[in-house]
Amino acid sequence: MKKFEEKTIRTEEIFDGKVVKLQVDEVLLPNGKRSTRELIKHPGAVAVIPITKDNKIVFVEQFRKPLEKSLIEIPAGKLEPGEKPEITAIRELEEETGYTTSQLTFVTSFYTSPGFADELMYLYLSRDLEKVDQPLAPDEDEFVEIIELTLAEAKEYVSKERIHDAKTNYAIVYLELLERML
Amino acid sequence: MKKFEEKTIRTEEIFDGKVVKLQVDEVLLPNGKRSTRELIKHPGAVAVIPITKDNKIVFVEQFRKPLEKSLIEIPAGKLEPGEKPEITAIRELEEETGYTTSQLTFVTSFYTSPGFADELMYLYLSRDLEKVDQPLAPDEDEFVEIIELTLAEAKEYVSKERIHDAKTNYAIVYLELLERML
Repeated sequence: MKKFEEKTIRTEEIFDGKVVKLQVDEVLLPNGKRSTRELIKHPGAVAVIPITKDNKIVFVEQFRKPLEKSLIEIPAGKLEPGEKPEITAIRELEEETGYTTSQLTFVTSFYTSPGFADELMYLYLSRDLEKVDQPLAPDEDEFVEIIELTLAEAKEYVSKERIHDAKTNYAIVYLELLERML
Repeated sequence: MKKFEEKTIRTEEIFDGKVVKLQVDEVLLPNGKRSTRELIKHPGAVAVIPITKDNKIVFVEQFRKPLEKSLIEIPAGKLEPGEKPEITAIRELEEETGYTTSQLTFVTSFYTSPGFADELMYLYLSRDLEKVDQPLAPDEDEFVEIIELTLAEAKEYVSKERIHDAKTNYAIVYLELLERML
């Protein structure tokens, strides 16, 4: 018995899409009462903090439909079923930025919103970037623009909320910490 | 015209639950083609990094149904419609930990997963914690246990993936940075 476990009495599948699935579970609470939980199933994702040889961070700007605006983020993408996160990371880096790398360091992983979603994000740091002559094309419904920034510039974008998502904000504070540790 | 804007052609409401809504938008892409976007609407959330007078961080352990396991997280909760995040923060802190505070500092805010959800997370730091004699009760379907840890202990929990979510991992690296800046 896991602590505070909520046993599933019944699962109702509501939606099965190209990115997310939604189900509603009826659960038995630790106190014997019943409740419902709304659960988003997501394949998981990978993000890369790419650092160029002149110590700039490579970001991509893209429109985020849920927010009806564009954000500046580190390159990222969804895991394919059965794919190793490192493989996804290298591919998304090339597709979105035109860079590749032979050097990928695991930084951390985290659930993005464990209250309602199972999305797990893997975060890597990559140096020794090399421009690819004919990079892989992004997904056909993906439109991104590359922006290379110093850490100080990136912090400005955080304060203006142009950089404003969990993985990228994490990346910025992580890089600040790295800089202090040198 | 916003950069790379995706104009909505049609919205299909799929689900309207107690926590999330799900809709599928048919969109016109910047290249004139059409695609669909699956969007989760969420009321937004608030989290607090509570630091006790003896410099421990107050966490709560709770079962997370989407993951079928419990995580150790900083206290957090959903925004009520129209509620100021600071008010939510103080209430959730008291409900989940039995502490209150007169001192709340804004740390950052971020979208937890902007590719498919509009959830915005506000993060605060709180010191000068006071134990409440008869604290507000948690939500009736919420079961949490308090765990107070030093920063070094918390980092151990990160490495064991018992602390494993965006807001809490952010909090840990942020506190590490604060410590280096002293």
